[in-house]
Amino acid sequence: MNVPIDRKSPVPLARQIQAQLERLIREGVLAPGLKLPASRDLARTLGVNRATVVLAYEELVAAGWARSHVGQGTFVLESVRPRVSAAAPVAPARTSRDGNGHGPAHAPINWAAFFSRSARIVESEAERRRALTPSISAEAGMISFAGGMPDSGLFPTDAFRRVLNDVVRDEGETLLQYYPVAGYPPLRRYLATYLLRFGLEVRPDDILIVNGSQQGFDLIARTFLDPGDAVAIEQPTYPRAMQVFRAFGAQLLGVPWTPVGPDVEALEGLLARRSPKLLYCQPTCHNPTGLTMSPETADRLLATAGRHQVPVIEDGFDASLYYGTRPPGPLKARDREGVVVYIGTFSKILFPGLRLGWLVAPPPVIERLAAAKQLADLHTSALLQAAVHRFCERRLLERHAARAAREYARRRTLLLESLRRRLSDDVTWTEPQGGFSMLLTLPDGMSANVLLTRALQRGVAFAPGAPFFLDGAGERTLRLSFSSVPSTRIDEGVRRLAEAIKDTRRQPRARSAERVTVPLV
Amino acid sequence: MNVPIDRKSPVPLARQIQAQLERLIREGVLAPGLKLPASRDLARTLGVNRATVVLAYEELVAAGWARSHVGQGTFVLESVRPRVSAAAPVAPARTSRDGNGHGPAHAPINWAAFFSRSARIVESEAERRRALTPSISAEAGMISFAGGMPDSGLFPTDAFRRVLNDVVRDEGETLLQYYPVAGYPPLRRYLATYLLRFGLEVRPDDILIVNGSQQGFDLIARTFLDPGDAVAIEQPTYPRAMQVFRAFGAQLLGVPWTPVGPDVEALEGLLARRSPKLLYCQPTCHNPTGLTMSPETADRLLATAGRHQVPVIEDGFDASLYYGTRPPGPLKARDREGVVVYIGTFSKILFPGLRLGWLVAPPPVIERLAAAKQLADLHTSALLQAAVHRFCERRLLERHAARAAREYARRRTLLLESLRRRLSDDVTWTEPQGGFSMLLTLPDGMSANVLLTRALQRGVAFAPGAPFFLDGAGERTLRLSFSSVPSTRIDEGVRRLAEAIKDTRRQPRARSAERVTVPLV
Repeated sequence: MNVPIDRKSPVPLARQIQAQLERLIREGVLAPGLKLPASRDLARTLGVNRATVVLAYEELVAAGWARSHVGQGTFVLESVRPRVSAAAPVAPARTSRDGNGHGPAHAPINWAAFFSRSARIVESEAERRRALTPSISAEAGMISFAGGMPDSGLFPTDAFRRVLNDVVRDEGETLLQYYPVAGYPPLRRYLATYLLRFGLEVRPDDILIVNGSQQGFDLIARTFLDPGDAVAIEQPTYPRAMQVFRAFGAQLLGVPWTPVGPDVEALEGLLARRSPKLLYCQPTCHNPTGLTMSPETADRLLATAGRHQVPVIEDGFDASLYYGTRPPGPLKARDREGVVVYIGTFSKILFPGLRLGWLVAPPPVIERLAAAKQLADLHTSALLQAAVHRFCERRLLERHAARAAREYARRRTLLLESLRRRLSDDVTWTEPQGGFSMLLTLPDGMSANVLLTRALQRGVAFAPGAPFFLDGAGERTLRLSFSSVPSTRIDEGVRRLAEAIKDTRRQPRARSAERVTVPLV
Repeated sequence: MNVPIDRKSPVPLARQIQAQLERLIREGVLAPGLKLPASRDLARTLGVNRATVVLAYEELVAAGWARSHVGQGTFVLESVRPRVSAAAPVAPARTSRDGNGHGPAHAPINWAAFFSRSARIVESEAERRRALTPSISAEAGMISFAGGMPDSGLFPTDAFRRVLNDVVRDEGETLLQYYPVAGYPPLRRYLATYLLRFGLEVRPDDILIVNGSQQGFDLIARTFLDPGDAVAIEQPTYPRAMQVFRAFGAQLLGVPWTPVGPDVEALEGLLARRSPKLLYCQPTCHNPTGLTMSPETADRLLATAGRHQVPVIEDGFDASLYYGTRPPGPLKARDREGVVVYIGTFSKILFPGLRLGWLVAPPPVIERLAAAKQLADLHTSALLQAAVHRFCERRLLERHAARAAREYARRRTLLLESLRRRLSDDVTWTEPQGGFSMLLTLPDGMSANVLLTRALQRGVAFAPGAPFFLDGAGERTLRLSFSSVPSTRIDEGVRRLAEAIKDTRRQPRARSAERVTVPLV
């Protein structure tokens, strides 16, 4: 394969390789469907770093010239994807005045050439994720520890139906019309009193209603990040937060998580060398570990952030799903430096599907976040906000959260007992104090992806840990979520997992599992 | 005032002026609260273009050093805005272990310094808009032609309450859980058949459910636009579309609207000189004019876009709210070139407050849009999607839309008759064929902002036209929306408007109206 590269050129090597490969594909030298050389081999041939070839391949995929398949390699696309006729139909008879016999006069648009840098980052992230995450579909009999969501079997669906009915009857006309961006005022007032229970004093005006914490990440990223900015982020952490920051062009700097929270000394060291625009953390019921930051760590972290003037983005998992004796307060309740922006959500304590969350920030910040929200989607459905408010006002949230917390705590205890009983000493795990999940670490040399293949054969699923880490790390880890596994199935699930681990010890290599989608929540 | 500038420096003049002013403010030479010189005067003093000074002032405002007040000028901020105590409260007693007597050890964060370029663009857009739009609050007795929304008095609220109730009972558990990003499959299938009525053949897979057309703009902007890209856009057009594209760093290139659609020759000329990334248009029931693109213009526009390979973003106002004899099809139904991405919404034909809309695009594009949507907010509430689907399935949408269209058509006719009877010949307006509004042009020398002051005194409101145009244009225009004015009040509203126009002829200058918010929908 003739891929001349010019080391003196200002054009990065990866870009040169990509351009050459595109040329070869266009010229038909690399035929449709052809498998490209393994990145390792091409790197050796060209005398470049393997990462350079990987990058060139990713760009090739992102630009629509090639397709990568997990564990198989990168392939030249069968053809420039033809526009499907359904998307560009023959004009129907009634518009026949435009039909003077000719079809499209021009080449179809090569859409890939039009995508923004952000869209290409998102796509290559997705490719990378697919590569990292062989995964799980729900099959009959499968016991899945994979999805980090509340158990819909516990949902207070009927009570919610009644409040929905009531608010539409009482305020339907107003709630179905355009609505101010900040949110439904009674819900913002309710949230101010709700947060006070956790030691957080805020005014309703400091609260912006958003579509779940995911939109919170997005609005924060738009409001604070320019391409090239850095974001300090706990390792491991919630994958979709990393994805959002990256989509806005940010570089992520990892801060290791310790059993009492992020390593503040490592953070200090990082801040001495770099100036991240934000620090993202989950102080309470951290996903995936289930651990909670100690008050001492919280104070040291805040002092550090204040001294270095780094805004802290607190992704607050609700303390009402804390199973220890004394629930910790949010970081923002200890925030004397005024550096914390808080993200809250109803997805964990109530219904994920409503897409309802909130941001708490100082006035100048909340103003910008609201302006961003208005451009993003005008406002969040006032109908759903009013229904949740009515639900809370009738004290149904407390009742539901208490009941759900009891059940999740029971499942957590069952899982911990079962793991202790069934797994050997060289497998370790975090002891979650709240939330939905824990992180398990496999013995040296064992890969969670390989284990997953065995596990699926045995009828048990989990989320491999790698997507929760920055590039490449966490291969030996996996996340077990206990929130949506019925308590009667937990021990059987762990038994299957233990068997799969034994299988993997006997035969440590295997083809990767087939590709399905893992819910990364 | 000592503002040395260096014409040989590569630093743009506006940036130099801004930096000098910041220095003077920091040094206290420009005292807090001080009014800065009028941009015209400072420009003369420095020998630069006035626009350069305006830009420097805007950046100064965006960076948090100054504040601009409509019709009054730009002022040095009173102080770096103090963090309000409610946002950084004294830690409550229960977290006292962090309190060893010291308060915040560091200066408060200067948040303005952290905002992204996008946030600063959004803010300076908002400032500009406030300057352009003195505006209206609902007062008792006020007749408002300002808001371009459906009339909530016509909402089928009760029927919607019943379908909501039914879907929660039938599918609540699933609908309240996390849901796939693409949307509720039965709604996507319904939309495919719904669009077929208008001549648009699409597969359900080509449809992505989004939070209203506003999120459609946003996802399209993220997927296609990098800072510095150009977007061709009809003039006048929907302000929030312009704002979104600008927030992503795009430069807008105006294409004049003619009575039969955008001026395709002007577009050709523009495409000969520039390569916009997208062309945004509203072919049906254009906002603010209420006009509709002719089939001939549509075909010429599509041929031009195809020849120049420019994707066309069609903001589709539903033809079910068309009042002419023969409703036009969407541009996408004539799209043999495969260049059109279609944005649809339930906000006009049903309820704006649901925030429910959809995108139609070729597969490679819809895939990227879905990836962007997933990072933006995971998915749109499946509960609301299912309720709307149930509503449509029971044929309630048709019934409602037909009833609403009859009523809006009646209001439109009443408004046109009243305008003809009461306004003098030097006032002109578009004759809307559908939608909610029309554009009215005042006599030479009369400003819509000045008129608005008089109009509010007379008890009638409207939306000044300037925000619908690129910088500076449209001062003599205003938008009249007839959709939410009861038919019994229309003639009285026009009578008041006619009186206000007479007042303005007698006394053509006035202080601007007080600032309130105009709903730009």
